Amino acid sequence: MKNKSITSRDVDFAKWYTDVVQAAHLATYSNVKGCIVMEPNGYAIWEKMQQVLDHMLKETGHQNVCMPMLIPENLLRKEGELVKGFAPEVAWVTMGGNKELEERMCIRPTSETLFSDYFHEVLKSYRDLPIKYNQWVNVMRWEKETRPFLRGREFLWQEGHTIHETKEEAEQETRNILQLYRKFFEEYLAIPVVTGRKTEKEKFAGAEYTLTIEAMMYNGITLQSGTSHYFGQKFSKAYDIKFLNRENNWDYAYQTSWGVSTRMIGGLIMVHSDDNGLVLPPKIAPVQIAIIPIKQTELVNQKINEIEIALENSTMTYMVDCSEKSAGFKFAEAEVNGIPLRIEVGERDLQEGLITVVRRDTREKRQVKTSDDLLLILQEMLDTMQQDLYIKAKERRDQLTFDAHTFEEVKTIMERQPGFVRAMWCGDEACEAKMKEIRGTKSRCILEDAKPIDDVCVVCGKKAKHLVVWGIQY
Amino acid sequence: MKNKSITSRDVDFAKWYTDVVQAAHLATYSNVKGCIVMEPNGYAIWEKMQQVLDHMLKETGHQNVCMPMLIPENLLRKEGELVKGFAPEVAWVTMGGNKELEERMCIRPTSETLFSDYFHEVLKSYRDLPIKYNQWVNVMRWEKETRPFLRGREFLWQEGHTIHETKEEAEQETRNILQLYRKFFEEYLAIPVVTGRKTEKEKFAGAEYTLTIEAMMYNGITLQSGTSHYFGQKFSKAYDIKFLNRENNWDYAYQTSWGVSTRMIGGLIMVHSDDNGLVLPPKIAPVQIAIIPIKQTELVNQKINEIEIALENSTMTYMVDCSEKSAGFKFAEAEVNGIPLRIEVGERDLQEGLITVVRRDTREKRQVKTSDDLLLILQEMLDTMQQDLYIKAKERRDQLTFDAHTFEEVKTIMERQPGFVRAMWCGDEACEAKMKEIRGTKSRCILEDAKPIDDVCVVCGKKAKHLVVWGIQY
Repeated sequence: MKNKSITSRDVDFAKWYTDVVQAAHLATYSNVKGCIVMEPNGYAIWEKMQQVLDHMLKETGHQNVCMPMLIPENLLRKEGELVKGFAPEVAWVTMGGNKELEERMCIRPTSETLFSDYFHEVLKSYRDLPIKYNQWVNVMRWEKETRPFLRGREFLWQEGHTIHETKEEAEQETRNILQLYRKFFEEYLAIPVVTGRKTEKEKFAGAEYTLTIEAMMYNGITLQSGTSHYFGQKFSKAYDIKFLNRENNWDYAYQTSWGVSTRMIGGLIMVHSDDNGLVLPPKIAPVQIAIIPIKQTELVNQKINEIEIALENSTMTYMVDCSEKSAGFKFAEAEVNGIPLRIEVGERDLQEGLITVVRRDTREKRQVKTSDDLLLILQEMLDTMQQDLYIKAKERRDQLTFDAHTFEEVKTIMERQPGFVRAMWCGDEACEAKMKEIRGTKSRCILEDAKPIDDVCVVCGKKAKHLVVWGIQY
Repeated sequence: MKNKSITSRDVDFAKWYTDVVQAAHLATYSNVKGCIVMEPNGYAIWEKMQQVLDHMLKETGHQNVCMPMLIPENLLRKEGELVKGFAPEVAWVTMGGNKELEERMCIRPTSETLFSDYFHEVLKSYRDLPIKYNQWVNVMRWEKETRPFLRGREFLWQEGHTIHETKEEAEQETRNILQLYRKFFEEYLAIPVVTGRKTEKEKFAGAEYTLTIEAMMYNGITLQSGTSHYFGQKFSKAYDIKFLNRENNWDYAYQTSWGVSTRMIGGLIMVHSDDNGLVLPPKIAPVQIAIIPIKQTELVNQKINEIEIALENSTMTYMVDCSEKSAGFKFAEAEVNGIPLRIEVGERDLQEGLITVVRRDTREKRQVKTSDDLLLILQEMLDTMQQDLYIKAKERRDQLTFDAHTFEEVKTIMERQPGFVRAMWCGDEACEAKMKEIRGTKSRCILEDAKPIDDVCVVCGKKAKHLVVWGIQY
């Protein structure tokens, strides 16, 4: 019973991905080039992500705000490296209300400049610090090649921006957020991540350093999934973000920023889904249980009613499909949409005191006695599925993670089946560039506290400085 | 104990308004002309509004989606009236990634065009109907005069867009949403509203008709607070939104759209707040209770701890202010921020088995015995305050609502103290235009099922068609 609208994952991964996006009604292409329409099923996943992450951020003392979506050109230009990084890929508003603007403005590609300008206005004393703000907004980057959720001209994200009294505190924030993201990925998205520091070449334009979480997709390709930047005083000097410190002297604030985006939905798909459509970890699934009558008889309807009342008083989310479609069609629909559990309620089963629960990922069927504690069983199945998805993703990740000691070895691995390659690096950008010759292999991150696996650089053979995870990226 | 940073409401209402916005840290001006920064206190109110409204919309079968923020010019131009209405006030993106665009795009001022284009792509059969979508997004209108929350180049809102099989169903949706908005305003924002139909001149560009909720501010000026539009088949014909109906013939869908925005925050301020700052109805206040120690002694801290534990298990939201500021300063801060209740915990009071609860709106103090059921008392006080604010707003509204039978009468009323004027109208646009001579008085809405108060038009004396509410608008 394979879903016919979906290309097989092992035949054409790229096609499989867009097929799943469309078949599960997550998003569709729009007539605005490079932009998608997020449909109800896709947007509901984003809402669930927002709900969990927003709670985690508020629990750790962050507050939500909302900055303008436009940035005047002169404001953008105040910090040189950021401009260099983003200017080539912004959209410019040059006319407003039928008039040419005196100064053009770009649609925010990210909001460091706006937050810095705001901090400059409001910051006065160390007593105002720290300021820990976040916003949930849309941003725009004029990409050429786009793919739903993975890379688009417009996407949704959260961007956190904080300023602190000391270097130590700001660096601690940068690390705390990385851990918060890791927790979110592992515990909710069931996606294992590798964390570390970006190389100078790969770090965020304007940052002193960038920490990152990197996830491996089913096909071994890497998705950069979230970043946390430490700016030191770079922006605070460019934008004059000063405060009177405890010694009553002027000091520049220490700054961070960090974000994750709707790209995570792409990651979810490419880690867990299969040839039958979407597979969602129960903790992030907008609807966890689909209740489907085989045929609507009095007995069946009565049982469904009972189950509904019980679920209503639980924390589990569910839907009942009483539409006119056939049971088989409804099963396939619940499957392609990635609803973690499906309850099949049929007259014959009920006569024998049974109902059937089916797990989406393994398609394992379980007969449950109507006299059993259904809620308990459902919750157990959801918990087990959540764990299993993580374990399975981690096993695949580990299977496709290799140590390499020579350039040839890296090449062999990446040409056979890409994955994470752990290899030593001397710190020289030329060696990093050389790696790109192997199917565009890039450094994903420097593993900061890891044991070296060799003494010499995998490219040039000179003394190695860092153990680096390399990969091919989306 | 008047707040010195706030101009008196009766001295200069406009100045009072912006003073409250700034003193309560709701928003601040940004260096992007016509755009504000929504600060944590302001954004938290918006989040609370979203939470309540989003729930009401989902309960009534609406689903959230997200459309692109840009609209290509040719897409915008498909429906003639909408273009005429909005083209003069949009922002145009003409460059992307350093290149002139082949076709310029505007930042959405509203999204009928994008939804229509999407509906055109996905709609096939009557079985797909109704489609009831909503989105929470930012929009941009190139306004010349701007005021925080009331009118800005960028604002946040929800915009609902639905298509239906029949005229009746679509018209029912238009009315249902109006009632949903009314309920939200009256039960949550504690703002009474007048509802009715906009005149041809005042309706939304492209709509067959527009229903509206209109609220009166403390100074008698009107705020158009939410609108619900019925489009009939206008857009579905322009954008080719067709479906196979039950008779297997092609038919055009019947369409609606409706929205409320961050403007509601402006309304909240101008209806309830006073010279001491913000006053928030408890049901929409992000924080309902401020717990403030007079001085932190062991006994005081212990009591506060007890109260916190009790509140933690309630649905009430609270904050404890244990900062180093003086108690008086904290009281004023809780007041200016509009926290509905303040609990003062002091050593001397506690010795006598008492704590004090103060209501923000009336500043009424209530001594509560520590042996009493504090939670019950707090909940009662919140409920009473919610009701009282509505009653007070309604009394003021009623006081400033007048019947007028002649043009001179309208003039006398509006020049003395503006408010709502109920007066008959012949339906002629010239008479509507004539009313504008009186301090810009405009029709707010036609009261559809109201008893006529006269036979003739208040302007021309000819036979009257409608009873209209007139007002001066923000």
